[in-house]
Amino acid sequence: MMNTFGNIYRLTTFGESHGPAVGGIIDGMPAGIDIDLDAVQHQLNRRRPGQSTIVTARDEKDRVKILSGMFDGKTTGTPIGFIVENGDQHSSDYENMRHTFRPSHADYTYTTKYGLRDHRGGGRSSARETIARVVGGAFAMQALERLGISIHSYTSTVGDLSLSADYTKYDLSTIDSNDVRCPDAEMAARMRELIRKIKGEGDTIGGIITCVITGVPAGLGEPVFGKLHAMFGAAMLGINAVKGFEYGMGFAGVSHRGSEMIDRFVTDANGKVSTTTNNSGGIQGGISNGEDIYFRVAFKPVATLLQEVPTIDDSGNPVVLKARGRHDPCVLPRAVPVVDAMAAMTLLDAYLLNKATRL
Amino acid sequence: MMNTFGNIYRLTTFGESHGPAVGGIIDGMPAGIDIDLDAVQHQLNRRRPGQSTIVTARDEKDRVKILSGMFDGKTTGTPIGFIVENGDQHSSDYENMRHTFRPSHADYTYTTKYGLRDHRGGGRSSARETIARVVGGAFAMQALERLGISIHSYTSTVGDLSLSADYTKYDLSTIDSNDVRCPDAEMAARMRELIRKIKGEGDTIGGIITCVITGVPAGLGEPVFGKLHAMFGAAMLGINAVKGFEYGMGFAGVSHRGSEMIDRFVTDANGKVSTTTNNSGGIQGGISNGEDIYFRVAFKPVATLLQEVPTIDDSGNPVVLKARGRHDPCVLPRAVPVVDAMAAMTLLDAYLLNKATRL
Amino acid sequence: MMNTFGNIYRLTTFGESHGPAVGGIIDGMPAGIDIDLDAVQHQLNRRRPGQSTIVTARDEKDRVKILSGMFDGKTTGTPIGFIVENGDQHSSDYENMRHTFRPSHADYTYTTKYGLRDHRGGGRSSARETIARVVGGAFAMQALERLGISIHSYTSTVGDLSLSADYTKYDLSTIDSNDVRCPDAEMAARMRELIRKIKGEGDTIGGIITCVITGVPAGLGEPVFGKLHAMFGAAMLGINAVKGFEYGMGFAGVSHRGSEMIDRFVTDANGKVSTTTNNSGGIQGGISNGEDIYFRVAFKPVATLLQEVPTIDDSGNPVVLKARGRHDPCVLPRAVPVVDAMAAMTLLDAYLLNKATRL
Amino acid sequence: MMNTFGNIYRLTTFGESHGPAVGGIIDGMPAGIDIDLDAVQHQLNRRRPGQSTIVTARDEKDRVKILSGMFDGKTTGTPIGFIVENGDQHSSDYENMRHTFRPSHADYTYTTKYGLRDHRGGGRSSARETIARVVGGAFAMQALERLGISIHSYTSTVGDLSLSADYTKYDLSTIDSNDVRCPDAEMAARMRELIRKIKGEGDTIGGIITCVITGVPAGLGEPVFGKLHAMFGAAMLGINAVKGFEYGMGFAGVSHRGSEMIDRFVTDANGKVSTTTNNSGGIQGGISNGEDIYFRVAFKPVATLLQEVPTIDDSGNPVVLKARGRHDPCVLPRAVPVVDAMAAMTLLDAYLLNKATRL
Repeated sequence: MMNTFGNIYRLTTFGESHGPAVGGIIDGMPAGIDIDLDAVQHQLNRRRPGQSTIVTARDEKDRVKILSGMFDGKTTGTPIGFIVENGDQHSSDYENMRHTFRPSHADYTYTTKYGLRDHRGGGRSSARETIARVVGGAFAMQALERLGISIHSYTSTVGDLSLSADYTKYDLSTIDSNDVRCPDAEMAARMRELIRKIKGEGDTIGGIITCVITGVPAGLGEPVFGKLHAMFGAAMLGINAVKGFEYGMGFAGVSHRGSEMIDRFVTDANGKVSTTTNNSGGIQGGISNGEDIYFRVAFKPVATLLQEVPTIDDSGNPVVLKARGRHDPCVLPRAVPVVDAMAAMTLLDAYLLNKATRL
Repeated sequence: MMNTFGNIYRLTTFGESHGPAVGGIIDGMPAGIDIDLDAVQHQLNRRRPGQSTIVTARDEKDRVKILSGMFDGKTTGTPIGFIVENGDQHSSDYENMRHTFRPSHADYTYTTKYGLRDHRGGGRSSARETIARVVGGAFAMQALERLGISIHSYTSTVGDLSLSADYTKYDLSTIDSNDVRCPDAEMAARMRELIRKIKGEGDTIGGIITCVITGVPAGLGEPVFGKLHAMFGAAMLGINAVKGFEYGMGFAGVSHRGSEMIDRFVTDANGKVSTTTNNSGGIQGGISNGEDIYFRVAFKPVATLLQEVPTIDDSGNPVVLKARGRHDPCVLPRAVPVVDAMAAMTLLDAYLLNKATRL
Repeated sequence: MMNTFGNIYRLTTFGESHGPAVGGIIDGMPAGIDIDLDAVQHQLNRRRPGQSTIVTARDEKDRVKILSGMFDGKTTGTPIGFIVENGDQHSSDYENMRHTFRPSHADYTYTTKYGLRDHRGGGRSSARETIARVVGGAFAMQALERLGISIHSYTSTVGDLSLSADYTKYDLSTIDSNDVRCPDAEMAARMRELIRKIKGEGDTIGGIITCVITGVPAGLGEPVFGKLHAMFGAAMLGINAVKGFEYGMGFAGVSHRGSEMIDRFVTDANGKVSTTTNNSGGIQGGISNGEDIYFRVAFKPVATLLQEVPTIDDSGNPVVLKARGRHDPCVLPRAVPVVDAMAAMTLLDAYLLNKATRL
Repeated sequence: MMNTFGNIYRLTTFGESHGPAVGGIIDGMPAGIDIDLDAVQHQLNRRRPGQSTIVTARDEKDRVKILSGMFDGKTTGTPIGFIVENGDQHSSDYENMRHTFRPSHADYTYTTKYGLRDHRGGGRSSARETIARVVGGAFAMQALERLGISIHSYTSTVGDLSLSADYTKYDLSTIDSNDVRCPDAEMAARMRELIRKIKGEGDTIGGIITCVITGVPAGLGEPVFGKLHAMFGAAMLGINAVKGFEYGMGFAGVSHRGSEMIDRFVTDANGKVSTTTNNSGGIQGGISNGEDIYFRVAFKPVATLLQEVPTIDDSGNPVVLKARGRHDPCVLPRAVPVVDAMAAMTLLDAYLLNKATRL
């Protein structure tokens, strides 16, 4: 259950790593929006395996086919069904894992919950499911663009390498200029070096993605259980390998005093209200205040190692696992478009929900 | 909208800080559970203002009245309506705030979203709304107890004072032995001192609450958009003043290698599967694995200062605000039962959802 | 579960016949609407027992108390909590029913489903729960009025007495001019006579309520699973004692040919589109077309007889039941405001949902 | 919006009449159920156009492809994605309708609601969408079979031809022995003759489908807004061309007295409770009581006539329409498997929801 995301703008996904296809249905896309399908495919390409030397070599084309919901290039307000066929499958890579519980994967928990599992490539627990989210997000982005809203996610930390400044100090249009998706070219080079080194050791490394959203009107978000940041948090924590979420001042804010952290309101000559600082991260009382929204998402080092790892099989016997598939030493570069997508869907959903606030 | 929390076990809340009452409706409480109403009231007392010298002096009795859903001391499976009357109101404390936008509060965003607001005590944005959550959680806890599940939240950080060890090193039965709700008596004393000092300055301070859940069976959580940790995250981020959430290895895990972080499976003589470490925080692939669940919740220093603060009014003119209400210098001690409550409701909801996994 | 009605405009209800109170929470009421609380109470008075000689003599004042969600006479966009206290309770009337399964009531099914039940006055299955719906509907009506939408329900059939003409032939402003709530005074007199006769026999009788909605803009309703008439149908079938629902041509339409039933479009001088007939009942493809919406709701004769009735107890033994409570011989007159209320909530919900159709 | 049906067992559908495919995603299918895919295809074949001389000649193979959610022939508990490609399309048949509002179709209302529409074959409003429902229902049926529950829908009325007896008088295993899907061979022949005659006139005719469900355990259904019959009603009213729904005594019950209609409880030697009559239609207080469930669904004569029909275009000008597509003169025979499917999904959903009633 719960393969649907969202309230008004809703994405339902299906698909396993090694089935015929993954895909989904977008319900609630506003009618009459011109859609650039190349831009949708572009987001999938950003997520695609095999795009650089620091990500998995699995070579998937990941071409999206739209099956419904558009007419003459525009959305019709009816559901958008889509599929992406699975191509470059090495299912035999996984045959030795049919009865093995890989450590820190979902093998044991799926088997316990459902009584059986599709062991090939992680089945439904594979991050390949995020393809559908990227498509759902790409449609949402095109609606948000018409509202003047932009979303920029980037790799801000890999292992112990972190950008030292906040997002305002970088040119966010340069994120895709390197394969790490970090807006500081020099830091990107160091991160790439670290990922390669760890890959060479058959190991993996985690990191942090920062997401910045600009142009958001004040008033989005529902103030009790639908707080805008709680919606973002749920969206991000639903991405594979995510272990933490913080927005605005985040965890670092706890050691500060209220007098240091409050954001003072000012009014400009045109009566526009803004705040002189933005420790609130653009959200106050769960509702956007018109300032930039920003948050940070922590990704663990993925659990698939190209090393021998002792574990157990589904009869409880000890076995030694050595993964033979093709894997990412660091998911951050490919997770950036997934963060973008989840952010876009969340915000469009909040925007559409908010329309019902007044008659 | 969105004043309902949960999927199967659902709490809907109502009420403002200075209206006649706050309350809620619990829908989906399993039938036939004996309820100890004193235990429900006990949770409210843990949240109550005026309970110690380090929390707000507002003196509310906060007595819960159950209006439906029980018969002969047991739940009937029908909705449990309840109210808690608002008593010790000093509405006149707020008259000077009718037109003022308090910094880092919801005054500006509510006014923008709805076109009007109840300014008294923050209206709906007041943390007084969490009373209803504590009641909803207290019922859930009594169901969870029958399943052998226990929830323990405690203050682990106040400002720059942090417990140095993880939860396994403390006796969690001592959490309520001090008014900070920290299971280390010496650290609690230091935290209390810090809070008093900051209170004396008219300032506020943040902190971190750690939540530990034991006795959870493997298999709870839905693996894509209903990941158990995403449900916890959404629940926690919905609490007033929360800025961050992490579980298991959390943000700290990003700088480690996969080989350091994976949790190895072992089987004991009875065939019971467990892991030798628990960096996963008891959740793998979004589903509980039978180990302890633990997560951390970051609370900002609250924005109400007993100092003069420059801000603007709802016409955009500069004004100087000096709060006259009675306020918490640090919300952590009173937020502990709210974290407990949200955790309990989330887990019972996941438990009930999971019942539909098999025919 | 499922004590919540609606998608955007949502009513959650609680309460049993003989508990302290019934009540509910309205979530999603648009902000900034002036509310006439006397008009809310007026709808409750229309539903109130004891209002005439043809309804139950139970004498409840049914005064609604609003607990939240309003400020300075306007809705604030936050949830509206309300309660109606239960007053004139003769719980002892029901003591003999503690172990009895009344025929065609919910006693047996509740006991089977939940393992226990509150036997007093039917507990949760009592139509007293509809009080909360009337309040929820009364708020919705005040929003709809601002949109120029009017709802008129009336008793069109009691037993074998039926109005011979369709709604266009009656003055719907006269519905409340008699205690049957039938817009034809002569027929109302005959219906009243029939109800009195049946009451004298300790028996009951059913009937049909017709609902007419005028002023609905075209475009409301979601075309697949949220068809406007399916939303109305679910709403009406959720009212106690309802056995059937039909709209537009309804069941009678099945014996006609398509060429007789299609509604031809015409355009007036101002370009306004309308249809020359309205067999569609104002809804085409699940979406309102701007014509009047009308539907019919069938109510069974209620099952509580003031006669001796053989049945069984909860141990399976035969017993003879003779109801001693005060009961309605015919629910139609008091069900009219409930139909009005459910129709109002459904339509406002559809209106608010539709706002998300376009960006 | 609202292209999802159900609460726990959820079907989301996509697709238009003349796009590349229709399809859907089933979420909430219990894990570990052996699926007979031929039985799924069999249900589609029962709905398929071109299967007899009394239905549309459009010749679609309607082969379902399952894309996910199964492994080794069993359901895995993950979502089941599926598509059915659209084959025999004569889109040019519809070119003349691009700007025409067909009477009593959804052309005008879609255009009003969305600002545009896919005019080919009715686009999303085409009954071709029900393919996805038949697939969703076919999976649900296989789960219900394991619970001993059977669903039998049949054509009971066409035009003014009605079966004279209730369902207990017919052998429901013979429903598919004729192309009308009526369990009385002689009546079926008369109905077929009527349909052919009307088809020859370029006209259409409506009818009633009766649905009977046996083997339902007592206790299913949620008693307030999720009454079992309200769930069935919403499901049936969501099928194209449906104008009415009644269960148990239905509309006919209104003219009877309570003393005639109550169903008396009796206990057999084994303590099993049953009722001596079944005017309740197997549902009391919204909850199944263990007796057979039965209800009736009214279908209008479809609006597509093979005659010249005056109407207007989307500029408001009068035009004359003559449909050239291939159409059903009577939808009943092909609607029978759709009623079966919606009933199956509704009942499985109620069954899974009910599992959460007790801990």
